[in-house]
Amino acid sequence: MNLVWQAHQENKSENSLRIIMEYMPINLKEKLSKFSDHWSPKIIAQMNDYHFKVVKFSGDFVWHRHEETDEVFVVLDGKMSIQFRDGKVDLAPGELFVVPKGLEHKPFAEKECHIMLVEPAGTINTGSAGGDRTAADNVWI
Amino acid sequence: MNLVWQAHQENKSENSLRIIMEYMPINLKEKLSKFSDHWSPKIIAQMNDYHFKVVKFSGDFVWHRHEETDEVFVVLDGKMSIQFRDGKVDLAPGELFVVPKGLEHKPFAEKECHIMLVEPAGTINTGSAGGDRTAADNVWI
Repeated sequence: MNLVWQAHQENKSENSLRIIMEYMPINLKEKLSKFSDHWSPKIIAQMNDYHFKVVKFSGDFVWHRHEETDEVFVVLDGKMSIQFRDGKVDLAPGELFVVPKGLEHKPFAEKECHIMLVEPAGTINTGSAGGDRTAADNVWI
Repeated sequence: MNLVWQAHQENKSENSLRIIMEYMPINLKEKLSKFSDHWSPKIIAQMNDYHFKVVKFSGDFVWHRHEETDEVFVVLDGKMSIQFRDGKVDLAPGELFVVPKGLEHKPFAEKECHIMLVEPAGTINTGSAGGDRTAADNVWI
């Protein structure tokens, strides 16, 4: 009895001295399971002033460029392409590509494709092109 | 014959007018196949002033912190943990974690684990701790 009581007291004492931090991983598949809309990136993590986002592509997007920043695509599931005015790149799962700042591009996926994007907080999906394919910014999931 | 010649002329004309750009994906597994050392991150891509790196962990690293930046770990293959002074996080493939700026941490992998890191160019693997586990910076693969 005495030993049990001591342990209890120690725990109580420890709890009152510090907050127990809980560190949780961010699971990409679990995040992707939470939505089904296309071309609408959701933020899953912030690193300094950059956002990590997940997004589902299907079909054709619009030509656009990001005047102020490079943009990283990492394919998680499915296949996609990025068209440029003078060529294209095909991306499969486990592949990434950096679209250079200011370069006009158009993402495309014949079937649904799951992607992780990395770009500065506040980056808009249609860049400087705007239009009705522009998704809400700053949506966390 | 005439049709063939025309096609040839058109190609020649097109080649002389513009440079054909070749856009190549960055394949994470292919990059990881190029080295076998542990705790020595290799740069595979640059986005603005940030580097994307791949690294192989095995065993225990040193306690360290990055005073100036958050740091992102994305597990590609295998399992790893990050210890903190008041807890830890376990990471499996497809999971990521952002270690906050200034927070002391110690990565650990019981068996070899393959990771993608995202952090500002110039970030040193041992942070402000230094010591003989410090890897060469700015190594591209």
